[in-house]
Amino acid sequence: MSVMKAGLEDIVVSTSDICFIDGHEGRLLYRGYDVNDLVARSTFEEVCSLLWYGRLPTRKELEAHVKALASTANRKLPPKIITMLRQLPKKATPMEVLRTGVSALSAFDPDAGNLSHEAELRKTIRLTAQMPTLVAAWERIRRGKPVVAPNPRLSLAANFLTMLTGKKPTPLAVKTFDVALILHADHEFNASTFAARVTAGTLADLHSCIVSAIGALKGPLHGGANEQVMLMVEKIGKPERADAWVKNFLAQPGARIMGFGHRVYRVEDPRAKHLRRMALELGQEAGDTSSVQIIETINRVVGEQKKIFPNVDLFSGAGYKTMGIPIDQFTPIFAMSRVSGWAAHVMEQHGNNRLIRPRAEYTGPTREQYKPIDQR
Amino acid sequence: MSVMKAGLEDIVVSTSDICFIDGHEGRLLYRGYDVNDLVARSTFEEVCSLLWYGRLPTRKELEAHVKALASTANRKLPPKIITMLRQLPKKATPMEVLRTGVSALSAFDPDAGNLSHEAELRKTIRLTAQMPTLVAAWERIRRGKPVVAPNPRLSLAANFLTMLTGKKPTPLAVKTFDVALILHADHEFNASTFAARVTAGTLADLHSCIVSAIGALKGPLHGGANEQVMLMVEKIGKPERADAWVKNFLAQPGARIMGFGHRVYRVEDPRAKHLRRMALELGQEAGDTSSVQIIETINRVVGEQKKIFPNVDLFSGAGYKTMGIPIDQFTPIFAMSRVSGWAAHVMEQHGNNRLIRPRAEYTGPTREQYKPIDQR
Repeated sequence: MSVMKAGLEDIVVSTSDICFIDGHEGRLLYRGYDVNDLVARSTFEEVCSLLWYGRLPTRKELEAHVKALASTANRKLPPKIITMLRQLPKKATPMEVLRTGVSALSAFDPDAGNLSHEAELRKTIRLTAQMPTLVAAWERIRRGKPVVAPNPRLSLAANFLTMLTGKKPTPLAVKTFDVALILHADHEFNASTFAARVTAGTLADLHSCIVSAIGALKGPLHGGANEQVMLMVEKIGKPERADAWVKNFLAQPGARIMGFGHRVYRVEDPRAKHLRRMALELGQEAGDTSSVQIIETINRVVGEQKKIFPNVDLFSGAGYKTMGIPIDQFTPIFAMSRVSGWAAHVMEQHGNNRLIRPRAEYTGPTREQYKPIDQR
Repeated sequence: MSVMKAGLEDIVVSTSDICFIDGHEGRLLYRGYDVNDLVARSTFEEVCSLLWYGRLPTRKELEAHVKALASTANRKLPPKIITMLRQLPKKATPMEVLRTGVSALSAFDPDAGNLSHEAELRKTIRLTAQMPTLVAAWERIRRGKPVVAPNPRLSLAANFLTMLTGKKPTPLAVKTFDVALILHADHEFNASTFAARVTAGTLADLHSCIVSAIGALKGPLHGGANEQVMLMVEKIGKPERADAWVKNFLAQPGARIMGFGHRVYRVEDPRAKHLRRMALELGQEAGDTSSVQIIETINRVVGEQKKIFPNVDLFSGAGYKTMGIPIDQFTPIFAMSRVSGWAAHVMEQHGNNRLIRPRAEYTGPTREQYKPIDQR
């Protein structure tokens, strides 16, 4: 057996054509396109098309694709799913609810057990369209408010914010949210995508793979990180307290501040600067930039003391908060975007499949003798 | 980055004290104890104790452990879970239902978000106790029959068979089912356990990890294999047709018969002989050994032609079928047993955690230029 690499760090599991991370240059590419260009010129819907079909769509293709993603047939939830959600305790975390809801949706999906590429594409479109409805529905249900029906004339970003808050979002909020979706769409073999591919490797269906990925994303070392950042920002409270708070926090043994450092990037995460700019613009529009100011101070102090760079999780939450999104919905929003990448990876894995089955180095005893219970 | 190993074959991900597979000698050990001894002398409940606590229990410990696993408090489902199951279409596969039910159970679990070792043990006991109730409840619901309440005086095996069929099982059926549970309890870093550990590596909670594992087990290259074997046996129908059917099948290009070969074993899977013997005994008790005879013929022809050995999936289904268990419940039963191993692995991963995050070898383009839509 081969030498152990803890956490499979730098171990190449397979080839992939979907996402390229240059950790030394700080570049992130989807299907060869720089994410900076996509942020500046594309939309989340177009990025989905790029990830799933491998190239940018023509105008005709994009129109059909946007229509499919926005259609009521694809966005609406079966009424029995809503009934199921209403059985859950109001204190259930949005990630538990999303995981449960996506798992249940497969039972209503006409293509659930169909592993053909065409069926997986149909399921990918449906799930990407359904997940925002599911996330928003749970937010309304737990607050005792009426569930808002999806609007097929709105983009995924605008429709989600409308369903979640019951209000028309500002154009800046829609644009910012769309960019956040683009920036979270894929990131190579991160833990949740890898969980999806391990599940896909058994030839399990798309819903099983996405449910596995949602479970992995739920962990605080992965999708939960931006929630941790905002909880810290709330704890700090005021910008003028931030410098002392962070210095005091970092002085404690084993202190770890979320939102910094990355297994792959050795320089600044290219996603961070967009999220920082947008969080600031949104704060200015709303007349409250205190969260961004606190995060800027955290960033400065951590950078000075630890020489580590911000990652995607540092600034995303401040923007979401300004849009009126509760902190525990940040990770479900991450999932609403990343499902586009997860699905692309599942289809790639199924297109050239091999069971992913590593080994353990066994370090336990090998010759235990079974003794009758009264002799133990 | 390191050289690629497709499917991580023979790549060691981490150390583990739980399960040892000697693929050359055909030995399988749980915590150092040979599975042959455990089959002969132990019970599934005791094996759970061994896997979770790392050693065989004293009499007093075992009594408390069995009582906890059997208690109505742990075995019964929240009524709202039953209401949720009733919303699902009757055609939903039992694995979709199990995945959804386990995911939903976390929302009712008082320890759901608690990652302490004590809380993980409590959740492990609850989930291991609840899963048979969930599997049986869905079987009753989809057949329009009343759900049978768990009986705290019965072993996990006897209680499950009673809840599933509504009838008292024979002692041989209970013994056989218990042995099957022992044999499926753990198997090192198989794909579903690895999916659980990848999810655990983000510090996700136990339910998320088990849900990921259920998704991976659902695939036909993993837990679905014994279902495929029995579907083949049903297609063959009569023992006298088996020889010609299998030879004809194997003559087709790319023919693959499930229930044979293994990524790790180079000799016969040590679990196969127990399941073969018990399937035969059960068939004799019921007065119908035709399924076992058909499988024996498949085994002989495949062995002669392909020089590969039977694995755990070849004989398990024949015994389940004789007990009156529908074919599509075989994989949920696998999960009811394997949850014991999954949970042990999640606790081991959390005890010495490192994020599992490998790399891809990127093989796509790196310099695509974003073109306006009308220039594509």
